[in-house]
Amino acid sequence: MMKDYIFKLTEKVRDYECDLQGVVNNANYQHYMEHTRHEFLGSLGDSFGRMHDKGIDAFVSRVEIQYKSPLHSGDTYISCLNVRKDGVKLVFEQDVYRASDHVLAVRGKIDSVIVENGKLTRGEYFDELLKQLAKT
Amino acid sequence: MMKDYIFKLTEKVRDYECDLQGVVNNANYQHYMEHTRHEFLGSLGDSFGRMHDKGIDAFVSRVEIQYKSPLHSGDTYISCLNVRKDGVKLVFEQDVYRASDHVLAVRGKIDSVIVENGKLTRGEYFDELLKQLAKT
Amino acid sequence: MMKDYIFKLTEKVRDYECDLQGVVNNANYQHYMEHTRHEFLGSLGDSFGRMHDKGIDAFVSRVEIQYKSPLHSGDTYISCLNVRKDGVKLVFEQDVYRASDHVLAVRGKIDSVIVENGKLTRGEYFDELLKQLAKT
Amino acid sequence: MMKDYIFKLTEKVRDYECDLQGVVNNANYQHYMEHTRHEFLGSLGDSFGRMHDKGIDAFVSRVEIQYKSPLHSGDTYISCLNVRKDGVKLVFEQDVYRASDHVLAVRGKIDSVIVENGKLTRGEYFDELLKQLAKT
Repeated sequence: MMKDYIFKLTEKVRDYECDLQGVVNNANYQHYMEHTRHEFLGSLGDSFGRMHDKGIDAFVSRVEIQYKSPLHSGDTYISCLNVRKDGVKLVFEQDVYRASDHVLAVRGKIDSVIVENGKLTRGEYFDELLKQLAKT
Repeated sequence: MMKDYIFKLTEKVRDYECDLQGVVNNANYQHYMEHTRHEFLGSLGDSFGRMHDKGIDAFVSRVEIQYKSPLHSGDTYISCLNVRKDGVKLVFEQDVYRASDHVLAVRGKIDSVIVENGKLTRGEYFDELLKQLAKT
Repeated sequence: MMKDYIFKLTEKVRDYECDLQGVVNNANYQHYMEHTRHEFLGSLGDSFGRMHDKGIDAFVSRVEIQYKSPLHSGDTYISCLNVRKDGVKLVFEQDVYRASDHVLAVRGKIDSVIVENGKLTRGEYFDELLKQLAKT
Repeated sequence: MMKDYIFKLTEKVRDYECDLQGVVNNANYQHYMEHTRHEFLGSLGDSFGRMHDKGIDAFVSRVEIQYKSPLHSGDTYISCLNVRKDGVKLVFEQDVYRASDHVLAVRGKIDSVIVENGKLTRGEYFDELLKQLAKT
């Protein structure tokens, strides 16, 4: 049931991420997805912290998340990512699956832009990253 | 510039909500909006915790957030809410403004459904809430 | 039952701060106390963010928290603070009470040091702050 | 420099755990330690969620944390744990090291008690757990 993805990360739900309904709090999936994007960036040899030090910041401009099936305390999940350029934006398609049975927990679409020294760029930084990706 | 809203909450950014970019981390706006919905519920005389104890849980089914202008350490914000029924869903339109100049920080659209004793309902619970709202 | 404090902040528990036990997660009290210290700093005319921009960072060196009575969803709390100098350290005594009945929720003792441009200072920055406090 | 521990967990800092000082926010180390305790519990065949469902809740009664050297964005850490009984309490000694050079980041001492159906127990539940541990 899982599609093909260019990057995957397997993690375990931490109990403090669950709220009083006993499931992972909605906002925490955004944390999962952010961490996955940053690990993806790391896999390409760059880092969010180092980018920031160089005056380059990636900002999320839009997030769309569909909540399909909640993750619970004790669950392991696979956080998956695809990415494509769309104008100046980098669009991440991010799906999170429960590891035990590959049931889709959340489906996300995250639009991101690059700001360099405070100014919106045309995403040249992303172009370089994606070129690198094409080579692998 | 601020539209009319049926519920508003004024809060201050907490420094631990800011990440290494020096702005409020994206996921935290979802926390702001969740807290606003729960306070709105409280203003109608109900509570998330009490609902849960009665076997009624409101689950977010979809979230769409546009990030317009980041909030910073020290900022005060106004978290605003409108709500309407759309089929079985309750749709919350939630905008967060910087208090000092009413600049829009984020614009959210949050779809919510009611699960009663583990089964999806047709949203009767919301109908009652909205009736109450119409009276005020 | 509440002692005298030089600074108090009244806030409401946010549901996402509660974990699956239905009470505020332990780590979140540290967030409450941090926010209280920063608001206290703000009341003296300074800010954590501005300090950081000047190359001055306050770091917590030690935390001791006694958990007395858990806060629940829906509770309002009063986060209180006293402060004294102890060698190079600034020692914050921070108690958090449930607002409804002034029952003590947590009692904290937080030691803090000042690092200026990466070097530990003798706390001169704190001396200035406390002088200002003595005037008020 | 690392002592012997009965349980260790290796994890990576997530960027959203860092605050505007660019280091892991103090409260998050408590999250790291909580997650480590729960994973330790899991390694003994039990779980926090399952305990809660049986009416048994472990509550932290006291926390003491010394902050030695901050973890940064990109760091991997080893979260280590020892445990002993002290009266009705279970005392966890929890040290977190930066993985790259085994520098101690934080040192924690966490006291925990067991509440069964709302009443403080003498810690019999812990005795059973520790017996199991002695066998391994």
